[in-house]
Amino acid sequence: MRKGNKMIERLRGFRDFYPEDQEIRRNLFRTMEETCREFGFKEVDGPSLESIELYAHKSGEEIMSQMFSFKDKGGRDITLVPEFTPTLSRMVSSRKDLVKPMKWYSIAKYWRYEEPQSGRFREFYQLNADILGSESVLADSEIVSLSAEILRKLGVGEKIKLKINSRILLDAIIDKFVNEKRREVYYILDRWNKLESNNRDDLINTQGLDKNIINAIASGRIIKEFDHKELDRLNSILDYVKSYSNVSIDVDLKIVRGLDYYTGFVFESWDKEEKFRAILGGGRYDNIIEQLGGEHTPAVGFGFGDAVIENIMKMEGLWKLEKEKSVFIVQIDTTGREYSKDVARRLRDKGINVDLNVMDRGISKQLDYAAKMGYEFSVILGENEAKKGTITVKNMSTGEQSEMSIDEIENIWKPNIN
Amino acid sequence: MRKGNKMIERLRGFRDFYPEDQEIRRNLFRTMEETCREFGFKEVDGPSLESIELYAHKSGEEIMSQMFSFKDKGGRDITLVPEFTPTLSRMVSSRKDLVKPMKWYSIAKYWRYEEPQSGRFREFYQLNADILGSESVLADSEIVSLSAEILRKLGVGEKIKLKINSRILLDAIIDKFVNEKRREVYYILDRWNKLESNNRDDLINTQGLDKNIINAIASGRIIKEFDHKELDRLNSILDYVKSYSNVSIDVDLKIVRGLDYYTGFVFESWDKEEKFRAILGGGRYDNIIEQLGGEHTPAVGFGFGDAVIENIMKMEGLWKLEKEKSVFIVQIDTTGREYSKDVARRLRDKGINVDLNVMDRGISKQLDYAAKMGYEFSVILGENEAKKGTITVKNMSTGEQSEMSIDEIENIWKPNIN
Repeated sequence: MRKGNKMIERLRGFRDFYPEDQEIRRNLFRTMEETCREFGFKEVDGPSLESIELYAHKSGEEIMSQMFSFKDKGGRDITLVPEFTPTLSRMVSSRKDLVKPMKWYSIAKYWRYEEPQSGRFREFYQLNADILGSESVLADSEIVSLSAEILRKLGVGEKIKLKINSRILLDAIIDKFVNEKRREVYYILDRWNKLESNNRDDLINTQGLDKNIINAIASGRIIKEFDHKELDRLNSILDYVKSYSNVSIDVDLKIVRGLDYYTGFVFESWDKEEKFRAILGGGRYDNIIEQLGGEHTPAVGFGFGDAVIENIMKMEGLWKLEKEKSVFIVQIDTTGREYSKDVARRLRDKGINVDLNVMDRGISKQLDYAAKMGYEFSVILGENEAKKGTITVKNMSTGEQSEMSIDEIENIWKPNIN
Repeated sequence: MRKGNKMIERLRGFRDFYPEDQEIRRNLFRTMEETCREFGFKEVDGPSLESIELYAHKSGEEIMSQMFSFKDKGGRDITLVPEFTPTLSRMVSSRKDLVKPMKWYSIAKYWRYEEPQSGRFREFYQLNADILGSESVLADSEIVSLSAEILRKLGVGEKIKLKINSRILLDAIIDKFVNEKRREVYYILDRWNKLESNNRDDLINTQGLDKNIINAIASGRIIKEFDHKELDRLNSILDYVKSYSNVSIDVDLKIVRGLDYYTGFVFESWDKEEKFRAILGGGRYDNIIEQLGGEHTPAVGFGFGDAVIENIMKMEGLWKLEKEKSVFIVQIDTTGREYSKDVARRLRDKGINVDLNVMDRGISKQLDYAAKMGYEFSVILGENEAKKGTITVKNMSTGEQSEMSIDEIENIWKPNIN
């Protein structure tokens, strides 16, 4: 875009969504929303700007370094929100009258100043779903089931897998078999799948760790030699989710999650071949709300961004428009133009999406427009139709036209049973 | 919220939305969205951050001075978007392949650093609906009809009025009767209803204007002595909208709109008693897209914020939850707990919102929770129900309980015909 000789462009890492894309994203968000509601979750919404303080010591160094932060005109140090959990925790801790547990969801934008790449933008949407006020394994199980059910409804249920873990379990394993080097083991596990096997070995050596033990952790073999109540808890989640969802789910000790605030259970969902990043991830954060001055409120939840799922749905041929009942009204003459208003209102009252000509142009140009816009049917209105109170419907692919009453229009969407 | 001894608070002028509010706002946005779609509008979405340049000379001085602007880590001068039109214009001007006219809508957040007060926040949602690529009066008429139809669906159709005007008409009137002092007349008309009548007179004097003529403009009397094709155009919009919507609508020469980019037709909607600010406002902006380097694209649209309509709906007693089919599942014992998973899945498949106990607590506490959360019905599950494959439904207001098959649950929402 030029201004004089200068272009005014969209910022790097940001996206414009034109209807051909946005109409599909709408269905993605709609599915997320409907599934959350079916699971009894209620919607909440928070500010897109918060005090920087809210993130100190809670979001981890990586996120802190990636914030769009600045001083506002009042001199406050503020930031565009990089994630929802701190806001959610602030909202919970600032009210004493909330009936617990709360099951809350939110679909909103978040911002991180990082290098744009496939599946990662500086501005993105994320669904957050959280159960606040329950420490029960049932809450963990419902949260994971909800995430699995959204993926199933999006049509990718058989293309994805869920990986669950517990930091409590992993810490116990490290304490028993490795001793003291929690940070180093987390660091290696977190990068495991991104590293070549000899780079892994180098890293294990450099950190002064035992290769056999680290491999046994990464592969999960070590679990067979270990007994811990947190493992029973993970198995109970596995049973629940499997019987609810028929989804692929397993314990994976390599899932540690980057955020500092997780206190136990963590999980992620990936495409089965791991071509892409994690689709969604979350876990239990039992301490943040108390740390922010609220009552002790154990919590579990996940974040589910819009970018990776879009890549996966595109790969699977699922990123496409859902058909809606819609027509375009063509006006033949001034009587038809006048009549089109009444027809439009009556069709819209039936829940049909009605686009009508708003240009000073002839019939063939109006029909051209309807075809280019992909309308399956045009409704043609002129003096004839106005007099009789009828409409003429043109099937845009066959060219067939038929005159009918307004109420008969529903029939055009019925499957043809010839 | 405390952190040590220090509170971390929400920023001034920003809002947290807990479910009791957010669930109602959701219906507001849903109504906006559905009505736009019935009018054949498609959804678009743009970034929340843009280069500051995009607003220079286009948004008017007032908005420029109220932006949340800053330098990002790459040294770019950027701002949180204060309105949608510049982004929309950038999106249109940067693509040559769009089929015109486009009918686009978007519901998104905008930010302005101004003094928070009733109906005005530093962060707000706004619906934008625009027709791009048509200079026809039909486009103006559809845009106004769409705004009226949303208000009707929200239940306030009879509580509001629409005021339309044209800057072309007003300029012609000023040129003929006042001469040269366009800016001064706009200034007075824009503040007319906020000023006491003697303050108005003072202002008219100070600006060296003729009181009788200015009064004749403000009251609309002057139109009777005037003939102009733009007046015919306004009358044509009046006719169209009245026959479509049965809404109160009239020409009001005092409607001038603050934004610099309007080129002709402008309109606003107000509550009839004008207790609040304008609910929505918009008009024709035929030049911006070309100014940004795009093709000549006449355009018309409006912005409809979330704050004033909330005030009006609250005053009218319309700010309340819509009922959905939802139940809470109470688990009597471990068999019931296991069984509740299957029941939840089957009820959710029917589109019923199912909340289920995720706490380690007894029956009476679970029922307490269901009552506090406002559930009309609880579904009680134990060994008895699991064995027989039934459910026991408790009406939370009457206390009545009855055992039934899962499929029979639909009956509990049928009107009681005793």
